[in-house]
Amino acid sequence: MAEHTSDKKIALVLLSGGLDSATCLAIARSQGYECYAISFEYGQRHDSELQAAERVVNALGAKELKTIHINMGDIGGSALTDKAIDVPESPTEGIPVTYVPARNTVFLSLALGWAEVLDADAIFIGVNAVDYSGYPDCRPEFIEAFERLAALATKRGVEGNPISIQAPLLHLSKSQIIHKGIALGVDYGLTVSCYQADAEGRACGKCDSCRLRQEGFRQAGVADPTRYC
Amino acid sequence: MAEHTSDKKIALVLLSGGLDSATCLAIARSQGYECYAISFEYGQRHDSELQAAERVVNALGAKELKTIHINMGDIGGSALTDKAIDVPESPTEGIPVTYVPARNTVFLSLALGWAEVLDADAIFIGVNAVDYSGYPDCRPEFIEAFERLAALATKRGVEGNPISIQAPLLHLSKSQIIHKGIALGVDYGLTVSCYQADAEGRACGKCDSCRLRQEGFRQAGVADPTRYC
Repeated sequence: MAEHTSDKKIALVLLSGGLDSATCLAIARSQGYECYAISFEYGQRHDSELQAAERVVNALGAKELKTIHINMGDIGGSALTDKAIDVPESPTEGIPVTYVPARNTVFLSLALGWAEVLDADAIFIGVNAVDYSGYPDCRPEFIEAFERLAALATKRGVEGNPISIQAPLLHLSKSQIIHKGIALGVDYGLTVSCYQADAEGRACGKCDSCRLRQEGFRQAGVADPTRYC
Repeated sequence: MAEHTSDKKIALVLLSGGLDSATCLAIARSQGYECYAISFEYGQRHDSELQAAERVVNALGAKELKTIHINMGDIGGSALTDKAIDVPESPTEGIPVTYVPARNTVFLSLALGWAEVLDADAIFIGVNAVDYSGYPDCRPEFIEAFERLAALATKRGVEGNPISIQAPLLHLSKSQIIHKGIALGVDYGLTVSCYQADAEGRACGKCDSCRLRQEGFRQAGVADPTRYC
């Protein structure tokens, strides 16, 4: 088990390279945490997300960025990891095909593993239950259930000092998230939210994630710095 | 989402290639489930476990065996994934260094993803809280917490038909597990439990896992079919 190298609290931030997780890193830093960041290469359609995660870490600062590779595409079942399923370009009913089965559970679990090695105090995740895509694993009750699980699953939890799961964007609208991030110095031009960004990280402007992001900037009254195809 | 191809209930069984998970697969089959199996290549010291998982599937039967690759070794913190940490060859106090941070949480999460795609009714995991190594993620309360999480994390849970997490070995001693497996036709000579088996799958006979297994066969009054170095 790693020892804390300073008196600072330690946070591990899940970083996708998108708008929400970049804001989340800025919030964790503003709360005085020494931050580590974790990204996932899980068979998503492009790696411009991962390049965005690196840009965000370089701009905002983090002690280390680690990328975990998992072949979730082999599991299938999602338009984000299965090229045979198209990303929808207009709103759909119910849980959309871009939902990756158990994705946040998998990401939080892997973060939990590294958090335990780092002896981290908190894991930050940028899930949002307001302007979101209707994924079951973005809801407050999911986050609470994961925190309970984490307390039971880990050495630190057994020793009575569980890792907390922080989801500071949970109840914010996209425009509130943008206002908060701008106040904390986030450059959203570095981030990529699009489900099917091209190799240069340019967004399609049509998918669910692009639509939520565009609407967020519009409502926030802030110029949208996104680069579109 | 896949449709059931028969009226049979579907189970996804976590299969490490060891004694417990092989028994677990036999139990799921005996309960009438159509079985799929999932293994993990996560940076463990050797791949003889994975070869054992294949042998077990060939002997007992499963519709498909999928191996998920994750670089958990990059996270470190365990003697099983970090070659700089020795596997202890005598009993230790507390949670041992062979504990892989959050391993069962990660494995169950990835299984949950595939289970959702398969539209599986249950996930079977061979954890055991009697003759075990003191890992926090082998306790009944951990399994219950994961089941609660799974109900919240998935499409199927949202629709009121959650995936159940079955841990049929949870309260059995190693010798009871062996008796049950033999009654169900498990050939334990195919399995590898050792933390540091050699390339041919021969066990060291000294690590915690070997000691528990040897003691199990002794107490069960059954000849130990394990191949030792």
